[in-house]
Amino acid sequence: MHDPSNDEELVRSAAALIISRRIAIIGTVPEKPKPHHEPEEPRAAESGPEAERDLRLMRCALEAAALAAERGEVPVGAVVAKDGEILATAHNERETLKDPTAHAELLALRRAARELGSWRLTGCTLYATLEPCPMCAGALHAARISRLVYAAQDPKAGASGTLYNLPADPRLNHTYPYKSGVLRDESAALLRAFFEQRRGRQ
Amino acid sequence: MHDPSNDEELVRSAAALIISRRIAIIGTVPEKPKPHHEPEEPRAAESGPEAERDLRLMRCALEAAALAAERGEVPVGAVVAKDGEILATAHNERETLKDPTAHAELLALRRAARELGSWRLTGCTLYATLEPCPMCAGALHAARISRLVYAAQDPKAGASGTLYNLPADPRLNHTYPYKSGVLRDESAALLRAFFEQRRGRQ
Repeated sequence: MHDPSNDEELVRSAAALIISRRIAIIGTVPEKPKPHHEPEEPRAAESGPEAERDLRLMRCALEAAALAAERGEVPVGAVVAKDGEILATAHNERETLKDPTAHAELLALRRAARELGSWRLTGCTLYATLEPCPMCAGALHAARISRLVYAAQDPKAGASGTLYNLPADPRLNHTYPYKSGVLRDESAALLRAFFEQRRGRQ
Repeated sequence: MHDPSNDEELVRSAAALIISRRIAIIGTVPEKPKPHHEPEEPRAAESGPEAERDLRLMRCALEAAALAAERGEVPVGAVVAKDGEILATAHNERETLKDPTAHAELLALRRAARELGSWRLTGCTLYATLEPCPMCAGALHAARISRLVYAAQDPKAGASGTLYNLPADPRLNHTYPYKSGVLRDESAALLRAFFEQRRGRQ
């Protein structure tokens, strides 16, 4: 006869086997409490000094995105700032640099790290005009970013709330809070105009 | 009285609203059929020309990883090859370059793109001694890589089968097959020795 308690036992020993195998490969990891980050709560009027700062810095990211469009690149821009001061600005340069990793966010992170002389961008905020993809959301973990603000969502590759929620994954060794929608319509309009023009040319 | 059909209606209209909002932001995406990739089936004896090639190229990635350890970097190495010929080799250089994105895989992809003069690495295979993290697995999508082979799994950040299965996600605009376990024990031993030595020093 089928005894369901045997199944449970089997699942438990399989899990134990998998865990012990992983420990054998990489070694044990010391447990440390990690903060759990959810998207920031939208505040009633979205006003106040932080909202104004976010708007000002997103405008800079949007200017970088507009520059990308002029150069025939998909218009995405990014800014890394610390205490409201800009450390680095970048726009997508995939075609210009012939580099698959030359997304605006990745370039901005690398430039900011060069500026600070450290790969740790603790205390920094990244502003991006489009929701970061898995590569860029992962790079934000790698850089130990403190906060992400983005404009438009990306239903095709967004990894910061849309297809994945990488910023808030408590299994990774770092998490970061994020806010979306700042200058969303302006960023979306820039992208739409770029793709419409490109389709028109083809 | 509570009518569950109202709930269904509500969910359906909410979904329609979200979809129409996303279309408004980014525009519609033409549907195209995409191949669905699962991990490659391990073959009975893991022999034959492809297995031998994988072993030879993973040995090169492992040599790069050993070089990283000598330089005080977490020992991870990567190779990009096309038709069995090496296009680029890299090891983790995060500390040396003070660059949060300087993982072995990302550096190897960028070098291979420079070598080919194109961001598209179609036809190329990436060999990595550790399972790619979200950033690196995402970069493989961005580079349109054709195949991934890795040695050891990464229970802490692996995004190629462990925490996430990014290579096989059919929602992304590219998928790629992967194989794991090639020289797994050698790669794991190198990582273990590095961390043991570092702990000993502290």
